[in-house]
Amino acid sequence: MRCISRPQKDLVMFPDQRCWTSSERPSGEAARQNYVDFVSSLTPSLESSSQAGPGAGRSLPESEHVVMTSEDSITTIMLNRPAKKNAITIQMYQDIILALKAAGKDNSAITVFTGSGDYYSSGNDLTNFVSFASGDLEKISEESANTLRNVVDTFIDFPKPLVAAVNGPAVGISVTLLGLFDTVYASDRATLHTPFTSLGQTPEGCSSYTFPKIMGPAKAAEMLIFGKKITAREACAQGLVTEVFPDRTFQREVWTRLREYAKNSPNAMRIGKQLLRSSEKEKLHAVNAEECRVGRERWLSEECAAAVQSFLSRKARL
Amino acid sequence: MRCISRPQKDLVMFPDQRCWTSSERPSGEAARQNYVDFVSSLTPSLESSSQAGPGAGRSLPESEHVVMTSEDSITTIMLNRPAKKNAITIQMYQDIILALKAAGKDNSAITVFTGSGDYYSSGNDLTNFVSFASGDLEKISEESANTLRNVVDTFIDFPKPLVAAVNGPAVGISVTLLGLFDTVYASDRATLHTPFTSLGQTPEGCSSYTFPKIMGPAKAAEMLIFGKKITAREACAQGLVTEVFPDRTFQREVWTRLREYAKNSPNAMRIGKQLLRSSEKEKLHAVNAEECRVGRERWLSEECAAAVQSFLSRKARL
Amino acid sequence: MRCISRPQKDLVMFPDQRCWTSSERPSGEAARQNYVDFVSSLTPSLESSSQAGPGAGRSLPESEHVVMTSEDSITTIMLNRPAKKNAITIQMYQDIILALKAAGKDNSAITVFTGSGDYYSSGNDLTNFVSFASGDLEKISEESANTLRNVVDTFIDFPKPLVAAVNGPAVGISVTLLGLFDTVYASDRATLHTPFTSLGQTPEGCSSYTFPKIMGPAKAAEMLIFGKKITAREACAQGLVTEVFPDRTFQREVWTRLREYAKNSPNAMRIGKQLLRSSEKEKLHAVNAEECRVGRERWLSEECAAAVQSFLSRKARL
Repeated sequence: MRCISRPQKDLVMFPDQRCWTSSERPSGEAARQNYVDFVSSLTPSLESSSQAGPGAGRSLPESEHVVMTSEDSITTIMLNRPAKKNAITIQMYQDIILALKAAGKDNSAITVFTGSGDYYSSGNDLTNFVSFASGDLEKISEESANTLRNVVDTFIDFPKPLVAAVNGPAVGISVTLLGLFDTVYASDRATLHTPFTSLGQTPEGCSSYTFPKIMGPAKAAEMLIFGKKITAREACAQGLVTEVFPDRTFQREVWTRLREYAKNSPNAMRIGKQLLRSSEKEKLHAVNAEECRVGRERWLSEECAAAVQSFLSRKARL
Repeated sequence: MRCISRPQKDLVMFPDQRCWTSSERPSGEAARQNYVDFVSSLTPSLESSSQAGPGAGRSLPESEHVVMTSEDSITTIMLNRPAKKNAITIQMYQDIILALKAAGKDNSAITVFTGSGDYYSSGNDLTNFVSFASGDLEKISEESANTLRNVVDTFIDFPKPLVAAVNGPAVGISVTLLGLFDTVYASDRATLHTPFTSLGQTPEGCSSYTFPKIMGPAKAAEMLIFGKKITAREACAQGLVTEVFPDRTFQREVWTRLREYAKNSPNAMRIGKQLLRSSEKEKLHAVNAEECRVGRERWLSEECAAAVQSFLSRKARL
Repeated sequence: MRCISRPQKDLVMFPDQRCWTSSERPSGEAARQNYVDFVSSLTPSLESSSQAGPGAGRSLPESEHVVMTSEDSITTIMLNRPAKKNAITIQMYQDIILALKAAGKDNSAITVFTGSGDYYSSGNDLTNFVSFASGDLEKISEESANTLRNVVDTFIDFPKPLVAAVNGPAVGISVTLLGLFDTVYASDRATLHTPFTSLGQTPEGCSSYTFPKIMGPAKAAEMLIFGKKITAREACAQGLVTEVFPDRTFQREVWTRLREYAKNSPNAMRIGKQLLRSSEKEKLHAVNAEECRVGRERWLSEECAAAVQSFLSRKARL
């Protein structure tokens, strides 16, 4: 088990502790004020901020929530925050970028992305939006959009066969990114859910392009625009998922198969993957840029602020 | 129930009554002459012409065959010519354009397109071709191609989520346009049929582009080139249809679901839909223009005239 | 039964007998030497070279392994080398080009491609690689890439509806080319297998573009990059195959259907097919060129030489 170390990065969405104190909250209309008040009350559960103080120095300890291992010519990147259903914090996005860059260069033939515990990933940690309540909304939203864009660009450019092992339910960006994988295996316990518009948001991860292309616009829009949750089997019938395995045998079957595939000529697999993606790489980068531009405008909208607050409020009452 | 009113439009394919009288028929080869004779004999059933005399004035009564209603943030456009299986006349094409433009601007979140009675739509009313028997073939075919192009362009540019509720069998252009919808629900009684080449014609509604993209060329061409009729379930398996419901519960299930979807943030849905379509909008307009150009040439061909006449003749014998 | 005659073509990959004698083998590293030794030992089974001596003259007898017939407005091109599972030699590639060019110009409405015997085709005859052991590797690989590119270009440009009747298992290029057909019928006995990377090679036949478009990247890459063999039914569910028939009734059902389709207006079918393909024809030619460029580099690699040798060695032991 080899864990990567990573250079200290300034946290984009949690630049300081100001966002947790309501006293410095910027003046604004009532809706946003309520939003700020609400998210401020969530501070205790925001574990992600606790590990990223500015005094931690340039040389960080190993990543806590993104774990990287290599065996049998296969490098695995695992989201490892099971208590939070592998919700992805800003720090984890940075770690994913570093992990993918390392895996792209190591001597493995195949890279696998998966989650630990019951979930594949519950998607973007909504507490990432908390920082939007703090000072410079324009600046923070721009930085957040840049982070998102960098993550997705890294998936687009990944040079080797990239396999998703969807071990359980997937939400939001963990679903949309599946369109950029070369093979997607899923447990029959997995569901795919992209409830963007119930949160006032729009699709990312190049899904606005890849999903209609894979599933047709009529299936893609019900997921991405109307927020329909689908099962792994339904996603498999439409080509988003390669194959579904019974949860009981999921790990064994997936890894048996991948170890076999890893015996193919590694250069042929790498070059073949690039051949499949080459004709749309430029397009994918343009789509990503546009999705991030549109998404940033959404984050700054009243509609989005009200919808996220409503969601978090309902969740807190459960 | 709110019905739209619309400005009077000059009828493109029925510019005057000349086409109904065989005496002024242009001279030409025997095949076309027979064609003209035959379509002339159909006059009594051409109800579409009866409501569009040149003396009806600029201010028309409400549309008879395209009905528009709004409720629960959903605007519905219904083809309402059940006695003719919702076959689309030239006037109805004009009404559809006006209805879509109105729905795009109203305050609804979702627009639904459906048919009344047993059929979704039997497609282009073949009696539209009758006018081809009259005077200026070149001019009339150009006007007809323009009308078709305008209808399809209006679908391409529609700015909000557009849902088809396919309540029964669909034929021709009512099928090909489905590729431009964002979600397609179908009754299990519905079939999809595009018998273009048996009528000497070629695909429209951007289906030459959307169908291969959605279903793959091997499924698309069997429908569009060979005229294979498929069931709603087969279309669903290939992604052209989002979901199929038992006919008995079709209306209840579709509307329950749509009312739920209409609660999502309307701006996010509108912008999300545009994001999904933006990367191919220019392409779709180019495809539409090319299909209309090619289609117009077909309409003027002997092959098409002979095939349409043969079809109408067989139909009349039934 | 009409068999085409064809002008004598210089054999690209078997320019002379030198490749069968180990004495003139070029010096090189041990791996390639073993490769050359091995393929040299295969000479007796290389029937394809026996019919193509330089002294055969410009006017050849009829093609032995590519048979062309016409009936009921349908022209059929059949791979007819059942004893070798319809493996495609260099000569057969040339014959296929000539057959397609003839079928594109004759008065048939539909062209069908099929195989005789138990197999549809086992793909590229690996003994084609034998010539790589001879003199001028650079030159031979360039000529081979040109042949491949010409074959695929001919499929891309084919002007009429092109139907594959996949009568049995298909391997390699006989699978990848299916993405360029307009309709694909398969026996339920058929399987589709593209084990490129186990041979150190990369996909061709435009499959790097058509397969992800038809099936989605997650299904396409498992086939093309990992070499997963799929059944006709699986391919049908993903849209690569139009319909699967029981092997017992395959021929009867396919031909009954095709004879019916051939009654549609031939010009409408031809123009409709071109409409469906027109928007991506330029793209397909670019993809073909790139696949051949990349493929040629692969053929010259040590990885590929070692993998092919290993495969042939295993096969010889069976």
